[in-house]
Amino acid sequence: MRPRILLDTMDTKRDTVPALEELLGSEIKVLDHGFIRVVDYLGSDESIVDAARVSYGRGTRRVSENRALIRYLLRHRHTTPFEMCEIKLHVKLPIFVARQWIRHRTANVNEYSARYSILDREFYVPEIASEQSRVNNQGRGEALPDDEAKEDLKLITLASDEAYGRYLYLLNRDDGGNRVSENRVGMARELGRMVLPTNFYTQWYWKIDLHNLFHFLSLRADSHAQFEIREYANRIAEIVDRWVPMAAEAFGDYVTGGIRFSRQEIEIVRNVISANRASLSPSDLGPREWQEFVKKLGLQPDDSGG
Amino acid sequence: MRPRILLDTMDTKRDTVPALEELLGSEIKVLDHGFIRVVDYLGSDESIVDAARVSYGRGTRRVSENRALIRYLLRHRHTTPFEMCEIKLHVKLPIFVARQWIRHRTANVNEYSARYSILDREFYVPEIASEQSRVNNQGRGEALPDDEAKEDLKLITLASDEAYGRYLYLLNRDDGGNRVSENRVGMARELGRMVLPTNFYTQWYWKIDLHNLFHFLSLRADSHAQFEIREYANRIAEIVDRWVPMAAEAFGDYVTGGIRFSRQEIEIVRNVISANRASLSPSDLGPREWQEFVKKLGLQPDDSGG
Amino acid sequence: MRPRILLDTMDTKRDTVPALEELLGSEIKVLDHGFIRVVDYLGSDESIVDAARVSYGRGTRRVSENRALIRYLLRHRHTTPFEMCEIKLHVKLPIFVARQWIRHRTANVNEYSARYSILDREFYVPEIASEQSRVNNQGRGEALPDDEAKEDLKLITLASDEAYGRYLYLLNRDDGGNRVSENRVGMARELGRMVLPTNFYTQWYWKIDLHNLFHFLSLRADSHAQFEIREYANRIAEIVDRWVPMAAEAFGDYVTGGIRFSRQEIEIVRNVISANRASLSPSDLGPREWQEFVKKLGLQPDDSGG
Amino acid sequence: MRPRILLDTMDTKRDTVPALEELLGSEIKVLDHGFIRVVDYLGSDESIVDAARVSYGRGTRRVSENRALIRYLLRHRHTTPFEMCEIKLHVKLPIFVARQWIRHRTANVNEYSARYSILDREFYVPEIASEQSRVNNQGRGEALPDDEAKEDLKLITLASDEAYGRYLYLLNRDDGGNRVSENRVGMARELGRMVLPTNFYTQWYWKIDLHNLFHFLSLRADSHAQFEIREYANRIAEIVDRWVPMAAEAFGDYVTGGIRFSRQEIEIVRNVISANRASLSPSDLGPREWQEFVKKLGLQPDDSGG
Repeated sequence: MRPRILLDTMDTKRDTVPALEELLGSEIKVLDHGFIRVVDYLGSDESIVDAARVSYGRGTRRVSENRALIRYLLRHRHTTPFEMCEIKLHVKLPIFVARQWIRHRTANVNEYSARYSILDREFYVPEIASEQSRVNNQGRGEALPDDEAKEDLKLITLASDEAYGRYLYLLNRDDGGNRVSENRVGMARELGRMVLPTNFYTQWYWKIDLHNLFHFLSLRADSHAQFEIREYANRIAEIVDRWVPMAAEAFGDYVTGGIRFSRQEIEIVRNVISANRASLSPSDLGPREWQEFVKKLGLQPDDSGG
Repeated sequence: MRPRILLDTMDTKRDTVPALEELLGSEIKVLDHGFIRVVDYLGSDESIVDAARVSYGRGTRRVSENRALIRYLLRHRHTTPFEMCEIKLHVKLPIFVARQWIRHRTANVNEYSARYSILDREFYVPEIASEQSRVNNQGRGEALPDDEAKEDLKLITLASDEAYGRYLYLLNRDDGGNRVSENRVGMARELGRMVLPTNFYTQWYWKIDLHNLFHFLSLRADSHAQFEIREYANRIAEIVDRWVPMAAEAFGDYVTGGIRFSRQEIEIVRNVISANRASLSPSDLGPREWQEFVKKLGLQPDDSGG
Repeated sequence: MRPRILLDTMDTKRDTVPALEELLGSEIKVLDHGFIRVVDYLGSDESIVDAARVSYGRGTRRVSENRALIRYLLRHRHTTPFEMCEIKLHVKLPIFVARQWIRHRTANVNEYSARYSILDREFYVPEIASEQSRVNNQGRGEALPDDEAKEDLKLITLASDEAYGRYLYLLNRDDGGNRVSENRVGMARELGRMVLPTNFYTQWYWKIDLHNLFHFLSLRADSHAQFEIREYANRIAEIVDRWVPMAAEAFGDYVTGGIRFSRQEIEIVRNVISANRASLSPSDLGPREWQEFVKKLGLQPDDSGG
Repeated sequence: MRPRILLDTMDTKRDTVPALEELLGSEIKVLDHGFIRVVDYLGSDESIVDAARVSYGRGTRRVSENRALIRYLLRHRHTTPFEMCEIKLHVKLPIFVARQWIRHRTANVNEYSARYSILDREFYVPEIASEQSRVNNQGRGEALPDDEAKEDLKLITLASDEAYGRYLYLLNRDDGGNRVSENRVGMARELGRMVLPTNFYTQWYWKIDLHNLFHFLSLRADSHAQFEIREYANRIAEIVDRWVPMAAEAFGDYVTGGIRFSRQEIEIVRNVISANRASLSPSDLGPREWQEFVKKLGLQPDDSGG
């Protein structure tokens, strides 16, 4: 609907991230007709550090290195400095995905209005048709047998196309938006659109700060999220890698790559670590992080350093 | 889907509003298959006053009367005391209405999950089919000619019913939720539901504070809102009348019944009021409110009292 | 400032929690002059379950037991049903505590206005004076030597009392709020209050939903929070235990009692558990939770059941 | 505390506002020791229009001119496009101002931590000492008599200075942050700071979107706001004039320069306008706006055009 936009370059004194600038204005394809386009951004890894240093004032001399500080902030849930970065995306997505996405309330949204304008003949048809999961009441499982899958996807395509035809008929318009019959008035757009199924594409501008975007990713790039929104989340995660590589790395290590154990599970871990401590040689943790780990479990720090 | 619920009565020391208690648990019908049910509430007109009095401390002796205080708070945008009341509704509504509704972010929502459960064969068909408005790009105008309207509504019904049939077919289920064919596996619910159009009914629990509810009503009971969501807003406004009658009255006088004039319009009003002041005898305003009105316009207060 | 309030009992059809009703209106003492008073509440453990069941619809037959469902919801970060409970507290607290508390944005607040009313001669003096922590740049450490502590607390008392005297002098008022000198006009309250230090008590009504309250508790009942706000958080945690005992228990097991490990720490845990699996006999976990635990670590489930 | 920052210029493809770039990094003085510094921004008048056009899709051809569209959006409370602009400020402000400011919840904040670092000897002393307002319970009135004022301001200075001396004494530090006495340990910073009055300066990074900033300005640049926060609001309003001049103009015409009349006041305006219509010749309103004005009042549009 919108042509690829060619952007001029201007001078700015703002924090600028060259690796993200390269993406500005380009559409990153998602699903069959969707896209994500980075429209604008504010801040960088550097801005996270700057904001934290306002909090710490003079004391900050001691937390000297940017990467270490970002990791410290994320690990200890000092989340406000991450709110100091903001990104604005233009997203084209199926309505049923938009319905899950909009549940993230701390964000700004401008959506295409089907009261104001006519929707395009663009709808999502999955590549793979899957059965209901046998273990997860709210997910999908194995791919359907080929024949059934082929028939289903044909049916989805047919149903969507037919629905669009009826939509245009109610509006008394053709695909080009022109009036069709002189004998019919045509229905209001806000009414006619109600026959379109939720696999039709809508689009919006979506603006969010980095802390809330991380929360979005932790839920929507997760294996429990529906495949379609996960596709969007995964593309956004790649954008974030370019934008704020240090914060993205810390997020990977402590949030998506981390695991929370319950009080009961901790008990087991504590016991088995305690019993096997002598033999442990933690290559992945430095001596300081090893002491932190031991302390988390409520065990005595040791001299051996693990 | 849910039977009418009979509720036991219990003792409580909480603020209680008998006029609202009468409604608890009953479904108030909206549109063809929708409803609103008051599930729970917290606070009353009295609570607004109590909260305001915490702010004013000793000084409050001087703002003595509840109704006057509530009107003062609302008129001067002291909105925080209105946040001290909360209401929880169970709402059944078409998906396209839910999509407008959810834009109100400061609220809590639990929606029926079509990933988890099968949707019912319930969809909205308007009573009146209208043409696109000729003056408002995003609204509807006059009713369509009878023949066209009849045909359109039949088409909407047919399209919805057919879509539901395809949905069940994809899931390999019948209307009772039972498996149909032994030869087909059936598609995951989260996938099959994408063929259902946005006039299908969903439902949710929705909880919001009174200040944000007033904001919702000011936008959604407004004539620019789509008819269908306005129907819900109007029913909610009636619930609010029962719940917090003083606040509701003030809201009617100052917000929905009030009008904001621009700087330029004010100029005209000021001039014409100024020129005609001698002849004005404002029956609706007391002498104090008359002076406030005169002052708002930047005119000199007078002794005549209007 | 406010006498203990005696509340009448009324009939209600709302969810009611007798164990919490007992507390309504009573002041729970915190620090030297502070308190927490439960003013009102909405919902219960039952309401969490109800809201979740709207989401799950028919499918919920399978998640049958309330406690199990609540634990499942909390464990899997299905947080919206917890937003369906709300509590309103009246809190009296030192200004420096209020400044930390207010950072929790998803809540409603009505604070006593020192522009409108005169503050009382009530200020916080700690029982124990501590040195700066030697390990934590933003905390306190060991108690000071007795002599130094005694002197410090006396100085804080003196400074606070003197500041209050100056405040009243600027306002030209005595402790009873009466004018003092005929020769002085007295300063505006909004100006005079600026000489009062942040250990003076303010008060507010504070209303929040359970999900956000849990977040508040996870940060403010934590050992990194300042002692004074922790005292308030601990009292609130006890209130929550009465109000929603099942949710509170799950919160204790999965959030405050749980620990999040980083990707690197997980690696160590995985290895040592893997090596010692044969000998593990997890008394605290049922066989199903054991399998979940094993799966979290990316290990193969086993038949032995632990 | 922070030296004026010299910023390098970089290339960007983002929306850039040269008039605002000029301010980046400079401190705009407020009150005696405060400042506002624009750290970063995202968006421009152009971005508001872009976001709106996503909503209107094809239909937008008809709302062609940027200024007209922005005025239309603001007038009709289509607020979401204004959320698509964001600004980040570094602000140094007295604690009692910070306490009012922080009540605006939809914003991001990183404040200087007096648990972590020592506060500077910087406090606010008003230039003019005023009496309590005789008409407004929560404001100030006339300036105090010269003698009383002079004495009061001296007292505020003395009290603040003395408080700072006690703060340093408790911490066992001098103004340079060095240890003073070998015989005293010194109190934890988080405890010692409680003797500092609320006229001491703190600082923070504050980030907010334009819609919420307009809300902030409508309350804090208002004559009912306390003088000190109004000073900050006025400086921010000047920043906004540079940043988004069209939106700022519309905000002035419709919000700060507009007036909301109640249902009762509207009645009077309607009657007097109706009676004097023939003689009205609205120089400030174009013919279309005149018709809108007449319609707002519920009067019949006319042919005369006013």
